[in-house]
Amino acid sequence: MQISGDLSPKSIFSDRISDVPKSFIREILKVAIDPSVISFAGGLPNRKLFPVEEIKEATNRVLEEYGRDVLQYSNTEGFLELRKYIAQRYLEKQNLDIPVDNILITNGSQQGLDLLGKILLNQGDEAVIEEPGYLGAIQALSVYRASFRPVPVSEEGMALARLKAVMSQGAPKLIYTVPNFQNPAGISYPEANRLGVADLLRNTPTLLIEDDPYGELQFEGEKKTSFKKLIPENTILLGSFSKTVVPSFRLGWLAAPDHILEKLVIAKQAADLHTNNFAQHVIYRYIKDNNFDAHIEKIVSVYRSQRNAMIESIRHYFPQEIKYTKPEGGMFLWVTLPPQMSSMKLFEIAIQDKVAFVPGHPFYINKTEVNTLRLNFSCVDEETIQLGIKRLGRAIIQLPAA
Amino acid sequence: MQISGDLSPKSIFSDRISDVPKSFIREILKVAIDPSVISFAGGLPNRKLFPVEEIKEATNRVLEEYGRDVLQYSNTEGFLELRKYIAQRYLEKQNLDIPVDNILITNGSQQGLDLLGKILLNQGDEAVIEEPGYLGAIQALSVYRASFRPVPVSEEGMALARLKAVMSQGAPKLIYTVPNFQNPAGISYPEANRLGVADLLRNTPTLLIEDDPYGELQFEGEKKTSFKKLIPENTILLGSFSKTVVPSFRLGWLAAPDHILEKLVIAKQAADLHTNNFAQHVIYRYIKDNNFDAHIEKIVSVYRSQRNAMIESIRHYFPQEIKYTKPEGGMFLWVTLPPQMSSMKLFEIAIQDKVAFVPGHPFYINKTEVNTLRLNFSCVDEETIQLGIKRLGRAIIQLPAA
Repeated sequence: MQISGDLSPKSIFSDRISDVPKSFIREILKVAIDPSVISFAGGLPNRKLFPVEEIKEATNRVLEEYGRDVLQYSNTEGFLELRKYIAQRYLEKQNLDIPVDNILITNGSQQGLDLLGKILLNQGDEAVIEEPGYLGAIQALSVYRASFRPVPVSEEGMALARLKAVMSQGAPKLIYTVPNFQNPAGISYPEANRLGVADLLRNTPTLLIEDDPYGELQFEGEKKTSFKKLIPENTILLGSFSKTVVPSFRLGWLAAPDHILEKLVIAKQAADLHTNNFAQHVIYRYIKDNNFDAHIEKIVSVYRSQRNAMIESIRHYFPQEIKYTKPEGGMFLWVTLPPQMSSMKLFEIAIQDKVAFVPGHPFYINKTEVNTLRLNFSCVDEETIQLGIKRLGRAIIQLPAA
Repeated sequence: MQISGDLSPKSIFSDRISDVPKSFIREILKVAIDPSVISFAGGLPNRKLFPVEEIKEATNRVLEEYGRDVLQYSNTEGFLELRKYIAQRYLEKQNLDIPVDNILITNGSQQGLDLLGKILLNQGDEAVIEEPGYLGAIQALSVYRASFRPVPVSEEGMALARLKAVMSQGAPKLIYTVPNFQNPAGISYPEANRLGVADLLRNTPTLLIEDDPYGELQFEGEKKTSFKKLIPENTILLGSFSKTVVPSFRLGWLAAPDHILEKLVIAKQAADLHTNNFAQHVIYRYIKDNNFDAHIEKIVSVYRSQRNAMIESIRHYFPQEIKYTKPEGGMFLWVTLPPQMSSMKLFEIAIQDKVAFVPGHPFYINKTEVNTLRLNFSCVDEETIQLGIKRLGRAIIQLPAA
């Protein structure tokens, strides 16, 4: 038997899989599992708010009403009633008119990102990514060997001058954004900034991914206009039940123009045929049989108080030169140390004092040493936040100016 | 704003997605939905055998015992107890020793195929595919632009001379097989054929995908040896609960050597973080609280009777020159018409007489006119099988020799 010389054990893998960055966050989370550590490192919704009893009632009702039907193979697009509900909610809450045929159910937003990378990206195609940006999106698009063009985001939104410069070098294939209460920075794009981004993209072939897992978790302020409203033909809108109901079910969706949805359905069918149909029915039943808005308001109320506690504690315990974002919603807050300081060094000091967070570098493309860090406020109660931020303040004071 | 000239609406998509064949079966199934049509076209397990009450009890117990824990985000590899059970069952049923760390839970076997294509295939890498072969595998591997090398399969297994010829042109990246009760042909690889395939692959870098969704649905005969036993370092074994419990939950798994599993976990994380953790617990609870082997025996008993009815009816109603396989398990039987006849023409005649099946051509690479067809016997009761095969026999007699 002849064996090709270049098929050594090292080269059995595709080129694409070697490009995917490992999740440093996973390593951090391992350290933070020690119950004596106060962890602001997680990215999880608060489990105390999961509607366990209501989900149980919904599972029973679904099996009583649909029985075998809901246990069989199903269609790739997803449960029609659930898709109708999603369309109806966009209309009611955001005056967004999305035909039900343009909605595809996915295994969380993460699968939406995988499918979009799959149908859109050839090797080296340019993808604008927020800086700092969501690590899961960087991973998903890395698989399809995107050439990333980072564009900074801040409380002023996406840096328009930089975006314009990137666009002027040839329209990138896509732009990935989390315009509401972003992960990791907790920032939102102001209305004027959205109009500016939309103006740059309108009538270009560049597609904008509007990833919106946190949009419903708004603590205050005006609801901003979705890119799906401003530039519907350019925009693919992603949503999720992970932060408003439960994450375990892996239920998300995307809304895309006809010609893109058609390709996404082909890709979804090849990827896993369809999303768990029982889970789709249970979530639908849960929403229909309960006051979903009241449940979301309860989450918002808890997270708002915890954000307040975190900001008050930062004011009290952090040195004055430390900058931080003031999120109007979501689960995260972003801290910027003075330029010469290292958040990785801070992590090493802080973990001795039993407090954890995520240093900023995994949220950038190819950076290993940054002065920024992410704090999560969804999973820690107010008293513990106060204690944890006090410890973190103490750690910052010990930090050498490198 | 400058727009690159080559980004016309037609070229917004990746090259890979244009290579994926559409599912002709979906179109067929649309025709077969008419309740007056007797359909042998489906590929579904029999819904009458779904354990609805037992699943309901399992969902309640899981939520009572684990509550919030089972609704939170979870790990990418899958629920440890379920993976242990899978490993234990391989040991008991097949004397196959697979460490639990080598098992990854997936969204059905289909996701296993997608992840394997993703981590293994560069554009143009060679993949041996069975002829006829499973359409879902052709679709999943097409996404990663495999260069297919079809090798015929029959009741004698995989054609060894052809496989040897393909291997002698340079080791292909992978070989996709369904050695037990294959979809579409219902054939199984005899023991000697397995040894022959294993001998050709041993000490080569070629990986063998052993897709085994039907292995537990054995009606008669000896249990054959898994490739995972014969060539463990070359073999990636895929399994599924879709045919033994329910398909809706999209629960499958794969067992792969360490270095491959490590890459699969990275790819799975980027694809959807993890599989529905609640569903994993429910299936595990269902299996632990019930007699799983007795449930499988019930499925086997029904499918065996229906296969018998189909073979008896074929003997009675089909012209003598028609050939067909005699599956020892699974859900499908494969019919071969005389060489000059077209199964697509037969479909057109048969559908007038209210009987449907899947013409063979979607199960080949780049064929549009073949003399073979697939009959499903899992979803139709014995009386209806008799009536449907009678109609199909009538249609065959009307078929012109092209």
